[in-house]
Amino acid sequence: MAIEVAMDRQVTFNLQPSQPSTLCVIGLGLMGGSLALALARRAAEERIGPLRIVGVSRNPATLDAARAAGAIHAGTTDLAEGIARADVVVLATPARTILRQIPEVGRHARPGALVLDLGSTKAEICAALAGLPAGLQPVGGHPMCGKEVAGFAAAEAGLFRGKTFVLCPLPRTSEAALAQAQALVDAVGARAVLLDPAVHDRAVAAISHLPYLAAVALVNAVEAGGAISETAWQLASSGFRDTSRLAASDVDMMLDILLTNRAAVLDWLGELQGQLADLKLALMTGDETALRAQLTAAQSRRVGLKL
Amino acid sequence: MAIEVAMDRQVTFNLQPSQPSTLCVIGLGLMGGSLALALARRAAEERIGPLRIVGVSRNPATLDAARAAGAIHAGTTDLAEGIARADVVVLATPARTILRQIPEVGRHARPGALVLDLGSTKAEICAALAGLPAGLQPVGGHPMCGKEVAGFAAAEAGLFRGKTFVLCPLPRTSEAALAQAQALVDAVGARAVLLDPAVHDRAVAAISHLPYLAAVALVNAVEAGGAISETAWQLASSGFRDTSRLAASDVDMMLDILLTNRAAVLDWLGELQGQLADLKLALMTGDETALRAQLTAAQSRRVGLKL
Repeated sequence: MAIEVAMDRQVTFNLQPSQPSTLCVIGLGLMGGSLALALARRAAEERIGPLRIVGVSRNPATLDAARAAGAIHAGTTDLAEGIARADVVVLATPARTILRQIPEVGRHARPGALVLDLGSTKAEICAALAGLPAGLQPVGGHPMCGKEVAGFAAAEAGLFRGKTFVLCPLPRTSEAALAQAQALVDAVGARAVLLDPAVHDRAVAAISHLPYLAAVALVNAVEAGGAISETAWQLASSGFRDTSRLAASDVDMMLDILLTNRAAVLDWLGELQGQLADLKLALMTGDETALRAQLTAAQSRRVGLKL
Repeated sequence: MAIEVAMDRQVTFNLQPSQPSTLCVIGLGLMGGSLALALARRAAEERIGPLRIVGVSRNPATLDAARAAGAIHAGTTDLAEGIARADVVVLATPARTILRQIPEVGRHARPGALVLDLGSTKAEICAALAGLPAGLQPVGGHPMCGKEVAGFAAAEAGLFRGKTFVLCPLPRTSEAALAQAQALVDAVGARAVLLDPAVHDRAVAAISHLPYLAAVALVNAVEAGGAISETAWQLASSGFRDTSRLAASDVDMMLDILLTNRAAVLDWLGELQGQLADLKLALMTGDETALRAQLTAAQSRRVGLKL
């Protein structure tokens, strides 16, 4: 179902040696900050054409930090100003902020601009991108490289290296615009995978949003244990650490993800609840055969995963 | 509730410079193999008294490997033979095997021997240890340092270093025997924590057995997704990797753990189900305030954990 894209090496992001292109990154958190750092470095190495990177952030201190780190050449708190002359606009804010910003991008972006978002859910965002003025070239995107830390301080140029970067071209997206988006993915060291937005959302609900909710429920369950919780936390070790790691994720980002991918997340939650009920039944009735079958199925699948 | 033991440095494990003591390790998997390796090394460094380590395993190839690695000085497949002259008997098999072996240890161990088990659950095992002949000195033990790999091949001398090692002395355990058990914990570099067996079982059910079942249910839920599962596995990244890691644990060991800690595990499973139901309800009804409260509670708790 997923199509991995073999990059045509003739297409290089922003290969315009004559004059610098302008790329505007809206949101300089972990994703936007890392993308700006990675592209700035590639341009400095002359592996891609000359690039002027403009950052947009609500927070002037973030703009200062990004400038100081060499991630952006200029910064503004004003979205309209930031994107006015951009050849490429990258939306790197949380999913629901992206949904609010798309119409504003439509009003102010210059005709012909590539509009790429990095939102963690794609169906609602791609539907909104489809409503952009005809002259713009929208592509949905989702780099699969989360961390449980947020903000520009956590950004790093190598974040995308070797990672999967989902692209969701719209029916209206031109081949040239898609090729530029793929070349951008290539430039930051990631591997482009083309997916239908709805398929993307159901798949990432399974491997990202559901594990997050499982981690949240796990932490809250142990905390609810009353007197025993204190001893439990004292004994917690690497097993609990890893299983619960995602619970530390940025709440605003995750809230946006869950609320823009509700149907898929609810489906998987139901499936998880069914699996837990099966395990509980087998354990309660002492049905060792059933219990062993469930544990063995999970073990073989997990050992077989290349992660 | 947990009592951390400040070691009296005058008590050193097996400080009998005149003649070697004999320690018998039954089961040379990850735990038993690592314990033998750690103690053999400490004895070779003369940080503890001279030690003759005898290994007991069903599998002659494991005995050969343990001998070749310097973990044991002698090996046998016969439990009675292995423990006949042991001053210290360490049971390092899965929990239900320990329960079967305790009576056999009672028949063949020499009077005065310290009998320590490394089983992952403690209430049933400590009850069985209480039935040993009066001359023996039983102490329940549980080193908190699991890995999702099993067998002697995964054993390492440093496994216990800096980790918590729970000890459950019985009412009948002499002070001298407990001091020797604590000194053994100290010798392998771990930190002894004294706990009541029932408290231990409820606490580890929360931070170890419950996360394991959550990981199993998560893997099986995603696998049950039909056509979408293939895409999901393709996109799975570090978040899914960590949340599901425990699902790769040794099934025999985990089955023994779950079946010897049923009541506590079922209680926590119920709590986890309640938390998931709350999350589902908030998401289904779009109750952002409730959802945010649950996500934020988990995030603050998880960030605050020193793991």
